[in-house]
Amino acid sequence: MKKSHLFTPGPTPIPPDALLAMAQPIDYHRSEDAVALIKDVLEKLKHVFQTENDVIFLTSSGTGAMEGAVANLLCQGDKVLVIRSGKFGERWAEICKAYGVEVIPIDVTWGDSIAPEIVEKHLTLNPDVQAIFATLCETSTGALHDIEALARLTQSTPTLLVVDAVSALGADDLQMDNWGVDVVVSCSQKGLMTPPGLAFAALNQRAWEAVDRSDLPKYYFDFRKAHQRGLEGSVPYTPALTLLTGLQCSLNLICKEEIHNTIARHNHMAIATRTAVKAIGFPLFATSPANTLTSIRLPEEIDGKAFIKMMREKQGITYAGGQGDLSGKIIRIAHLGWMNEYDVIVAISAFERGLAEIGYDIPLGAGVAAVQEVFTKFAN
Amino acid sequence: MKKSHLFTPGPTPIPPDALLAMAQPIDYHRSEDAVALIKDVLEKLKHVFQTENDVIFLTSSGTGAMEGAVANLLCQGDKVLVIRSGKFGERWAEICKAYGVEVIPIDVTWGDSIAPEIVEKHLTLNPDVQAIFATLCETSTGALHDIEALARLTQSTPTLLVVDAVSALGADDLQMDNWGVDVVVSCSQKGLMTPPGLAFAALNQRAWEAVDRSDLPKYYFDFRKAHQRGLEGSVPYTPALTLLTGLQCSLNLICKEEIHNTIARHNHMAIATRTAVKAIGFPLFATSPANTLTSIRLPEEIDGKAFIKMMREKQGITYAGGQGDLSGKIIRIAHLGWMNEYDVIVAISAFERGLAEIGYDIPLGAGVAAVQEVFTKFAN
Repeated sequence: MKKSHLFTPGPTPIPPDALLAMAQPIDYHRSEDAVALIKDVLEKLKHVFQTENDVIFLTSSGTGAMEGAVANLLCQGDKVLVIRSGKFGERWAEICKAYGVEVIPIDVTWGDSIAPEIVEKHLTLNPDVQAIFATLCETSTGALHDIEALARLTQSTPTLLVVDAVSALGADDLQMDNWGVDVVVSCSQKGLMTPPGLAFAALNQRAWEAVDRSDLPKYYFDFRKAHQRGLEGSVPYTPALTLLTGLQCSLNLICKEEIHNTIARHNHMAIATRTAVKAIGFPLFATSPANTLTSIRLPEEIDGKAFIKMMREKQGITYAGGQGDLSGKIIRIAHLGWMNEYDVIVAISAFERGLAEIGYDIPLGAGVAAVQEVFTKFAN
Repeated sequence: MKKSHLFTPGPTPIPPDALLAMAQPIDYHRSEDAVALIKDVLEKLKHVFQTENDVIFLTSSGTGAMEGAVANLLCQGDKVLVIRSGKFGERWAEICKAYGVEVIPIDVTWGDSIAPEIVEKHLTLNPDVQAIFATLCETSTGALHDIEALARLTQSTPTLLVVDAVSALGADDLQMDNWGVDVVVSCSQKGLMTPPGLAFAALNQRAWEAVDRSDLPKYYFDFRKAHQRGLEGSVPYTPALTLLTGLQCSLNLICKEEIHNTIARHNHMAIATRTAVKAIGFPLFATSPANTLTSIRLPEEIDGKAFIKMMREKQGITYAGGQGDLSGKIIRIAHLGWMNEYDVIVAISAFERGLAEIGYDIPLGAGVAAVQEVFTKFAN
């Protein structure tokens, strides 16, 4: 009778309509019905990306779209700036290095967000960098980065701003067109409430011009091919068709809610979670936390790995732990996608219960009361 | 009330158990349950690949595993032989060229299969080729290639034999270990009866040694990372977890049937289909047809594209048409995956009905009678 609750920053819970749509018999990806499905999904993704640019999709995890961005935008010998404030910023640098691109890293303490002035300084010192690779929400730490400020820096230069919005799309605001972001990549299993297996990229005009110049090797992740075929409702290679079917259901929910309301809902859930964590008496790990997830720094006497294991086994509650050096030291609670107030209540009440279970002395109910107060305030 | 029947060579119908398993709430891909799932799937794939080598998986279409094979096995400046007997042989060459690998093409008329002597001649002339890229079943034509004979040629040389078994795995025999095939790639949406989105590769010892030497750029398709993590029941990047859940159900079916019986079932369906097509009076397109699908050459007076469109719209029957120059000229009927005798009966009876519908004069029932006779013979 164990009921499960998933609070990981991807995969996130799938709406029942999407689950049932994906359980239907599969169809042929070259049928007229599939063409209509692909066109509809690509059109609705524009709303979520807050762009008039075409969105392309790939059958891969979000990392595939990240690699695609590198392989499609850059040339041999190119130099780039990479903001590394966690595991996913590091991934940008690893991919660039795999392709022989020269990386100038801008390292930020994990948990912190980049100060735009530092990027400005690097950009002044290196005006010839082809691109800056940044992260909207660094999922490994829960830190939000000020992409709007970074776009103000790059817009007037030839340098492209490429943003990993893998976990944060649909949760933290990212106004691609209004802010002037050149490239945004994301994936299906976070704010888009679909199982993992689809990745997305949106490119503006000058990014597509860079694609035309690029000479790095690519085949499966060739953005031009995906773009041309996508406009026809088609694909170069067999797509994850069932996932597209589920995605259509989830996109319908977001389009109905409207993206600014979706982001506001996530903002409310994030504020409630942060307030509750503070009321319980634990510090937040990120200095500028995202709407996507909340990272909690654990007291040294709590073994985060054991706590997470116990919560899953005894309570049916799945939180995410820390990655790399943060393993065992933080807990990450996502409030992302198919979630509302009551999911936050569950996440926080379970956290309180779990702490009580391991004998850690906290004021039971303080976190839940904080959530109630925050949501009541937002409702009025 | 239209009931649909899918006879395309991928995607293929999904068993109901797999569909329902995939409709369950999603889980975290780093959980212990996911570790057990991944380990179980990778172990059962060995049975289907007929190998003791480890199998790796990627979240991508089959083309991702093809690109991975090129990027992981080869070095800059390498020379390879590519057998091109259709669209998918051409794809091997395109991928190699995208990575700057020198391709010596061995072109075969579409519909024909390669004569091993020709490969032997090329191999003698070019003993320094790093690999031969071949196709088990060329899905665009339905032709089966004699991989066993090719492996006899390469086994005693340093040249690797890399086989695209994307459509044919589990339908046409491919004894990786017994025959001495170095690398086999495949995907989820054909004989493995799972939605598209997963790709697989199996490499033997000397192929892994080539991977260690390879200097081509790769990140997402890095076989070593997928291999190391796979052994731990893990993944470098978020996998298409729901598809793995479905795959487990489908693999259970194959393991229970046992792969040699699975291949025999496909062989019987293929023989029945071919016999029926001949009884209807149409020629087969492939000179050595595969168990995977049957390609039928249409008389000139039949517009294949219109016929396929009509069959889907009026009868709920989806066949595949020809690709490239064969568009409109052939019809491809898959007997692949979650299918048995009665699916062949449906495919053939529908074909007869469709021909009658467009006023093409054929002996109604002749094809179905042929199917009945073949299956009755095999049953006795």
